[in-house]
Amino acid sequence: MLLQNKERQEVAKIGKQELIDRLLEKFPIEQATTTLGPGHDAAVISPTEPHLLTASKLMIENIHFDLTYFPLKHLGYKAVAATATDILAMNALPSQLVLNLAVSNRFSIEAIEDFMAGVNLCCQRYHIDLVGFDITTSQLGLIISTQVMGQASDKQLVKRTTVNENDLICVSGDLAAAYTGLLLLEREKKVFEVNPDMQPDFAGHEYVLERQLKPEPRTDIVEALRKEGIVPTGMIAVNNGLAAALLHLCRASHKGADVYENKLPIDVTTFNTLKDLKIVAASIALNGGEDYELLFTIAQKDYEKVQKMANVTVVGFVKEEAAGVHLITTDDRQIALKAQEFSKSE
Amino acid sequence: MLLQNKERQEVAKIGKQELIDRLLEKFPIEQATTTLGPGHDAAVISPTEPHLLTASKLMIENIHFDLTYFPLKHLGYKAVAATATDILAMNALPSQLVLNLAVSNRFSIEAIEDFMAGVNLCCQRYHIDLVGFDITTSQLGLIISTQVMGQASDKQLVKRTTVNENDLICVSGDLAAAYTGLLLLEREKKVFEVNPDMQPDFAGHEYVLERQLKPEPRTDIVEALRKEGIVPTGMIAVNNGLAAALLHLCRASHKGADVYENKLPIDVTTFNTLKDLKIVAASIALNGGEDYELLFTIAQKDYEKVQKMANVTVVGFVKEEAAGVHLITTDDRQIALKAQEFSKSE
Repeated sequence: MLLQNKERQEVAKIGKQELIDRLLEKFPIEQATTTLGPGHDAAVISPTEPHLLTASKLMIENIHFDLTYFPLKHLGYKAVAATATDILAMNALPSQLVLNLAVSNRFSIEAIEDFMAGVNLCCQRYHIDLVGFDITTSQLGLIISTQVMGQASDKQLVKRTTVNENDLICVSGDLAAAYTGLLLLEREKKVFEVNPDMQPDFAGHEYVLERQLKPEPRTDIVEALRKEGIVPTGMIAVNNGLAAALLHLCRASHKGADVYENKLPIDVTTFNTLKDLKIVAASIALNGGEDYELLFTIAQKDYEKVQKMANVTVVGFVKEEAAGVHLITTDDRQIALKAQEFSKSE
Repeated sequence: MLLQNKERQEVAKIGKQELIDRLLEKFPIEQATTTLGPGHDAAVISPTEPHLLTASKLMIENIHFDLTYFPLKHLGYKAVAATATDILAMNALPSQLVLNLAVSNRFSIEAIEDFMAGVNLCCQRYHIDLVGFDITTSQLGLIISTQVMGQASDKQLVKRTTVNENDLICVSGDLAAAYTGLLLLEREKKVFEVNPDMQPDFAGHEYVLERQLKPEPRTDIVEALRKEGIVPTGMIAVNNGLAAALLHLCRASHKGADVYENKLPIDVTTFNTLKDLKIVAASIALNGGEDYELLFTIAQKDYEKVQKMANVTVVGFVKEEAAGVHLITTDDRQIALKAQEFSKSE
């Protein structure tokens, strides 16, 4: 739908190299650590910290995104934001991006430019340099391969393996909104397929749609942690629901945990939309996806400091491994969290 | 063809995470600079040199490879070798690999294991640590996203932009073999499609097939350059033929060049196979692909040193930009090299 309303120039018209050069013009180098950006066999980064971090994602059309309702510009933004989140989840700040696209001949120059405008917006907002970029051909649809690099000192770097018993479990922002946005978009897509004259009415649902279509990497949280002098004891990105993230973290650290249903941060618009859809919000917070929030644990001594931080909620605490990982419901039942994500194919 | 002769276990049977864990067991960490490998949100590399280099490739089934004749194990090897070449082409040595695969349900666990066995072989031979690995779902076929990292000191790092007039143009190994191997494989595929009972006879063509199916990254050349105390003045990978590489290098350095047809290194088996196919070997050396050799320029003072190196041929010299980039044929004609690769879609 979205691709049809645009002017259309074929990529073959100007050739791949000219297209790449033209797109790269809008990506200035901002980071002092970027020694050599695009245009060589490899990009060169000269870290100022002892550790360089690298995280990557492979996003495939109709598996990870649906262009019938996902604007290309938003998708470009999201591809960078989602990958940058994995750098933030080690308590580091993202600094460089390498991007490889594969496009079928369905995609015009304008479509690729739209996508890259979103990449550019996210890069500029978060001071991420595009240091490598290539476009190749795909048989079918759009394939996005991203690699984001960041840096951290030895003291800043936070792993999944170092969580201690009695630590407090914190989560940034709020959960379940992105998945709720996806449910709405999928619902409208079905309506549209039956009756193409129906126009979607998303009034009142702006927040959940924005969380799905244009997630923000939580650099604010990593920066705030540094400002407050907090080094988390463990950290992980919430990409596939809180349960999956918490189970990964506990498994890596050989710990158990209790999280409280009534502490789960869920925005009121998310909650109400899910209520209309007859879905329990907590189950989406636990098992939804694409929140791109940060889950981290802190020593109890840091409790007062973390309370001063905006957009952080303490949702539970760490126990010994044998205790297992549980949700304590509002009516005080104890439900074991399951590793649902391990069987997911993505 | 190749996928059908194997036992078949579905990926869904053991789940993605267990498959990843199982595959990773065969990848030990060798590099002292690998601080944190797979299993966290990001991999952590702690460079010992001031510069960290990163190069990436996106390889897509039926665009970049054809599994009807390309064994998966060879493909895994080639994916690493091809990407490592881009690090070598900056006069640096590859040290870490991040790999993301997308597979359709056509691929069994055994098929993925075959692919990873090839990845493993190349990693072990060249001491490259796999520091990040993920598998996701594709709609159609196999998608391979690789990132190889390496390190270089300020003195070692060689760019494309620093070539000087009168420098000698050198190329490693020999050219045109990989493309010749591809021609043979494509020919046999067509025969097979017409008559599936025909078995290919590749006797005498082992060299060109190996160059296509299992290219080696030229770490030996970078190591030999260091041993001889040569720092090239400019360097680039020969991925899409000598002409494309030389034109890129000359354009980046604002120089011209002459290369001599009778100096082009072409193996005798390559030459004879091409002769049988009624193809001029020099045109494939110039415009073929996937040689994964290194093109580099050296100051004239280093000529004697480079002569001591095995597997390096001086093919021409650098001129002023206005002179253009030419091939001097065996009958002494001057032919301007064209940037054919700029219009290629890959």
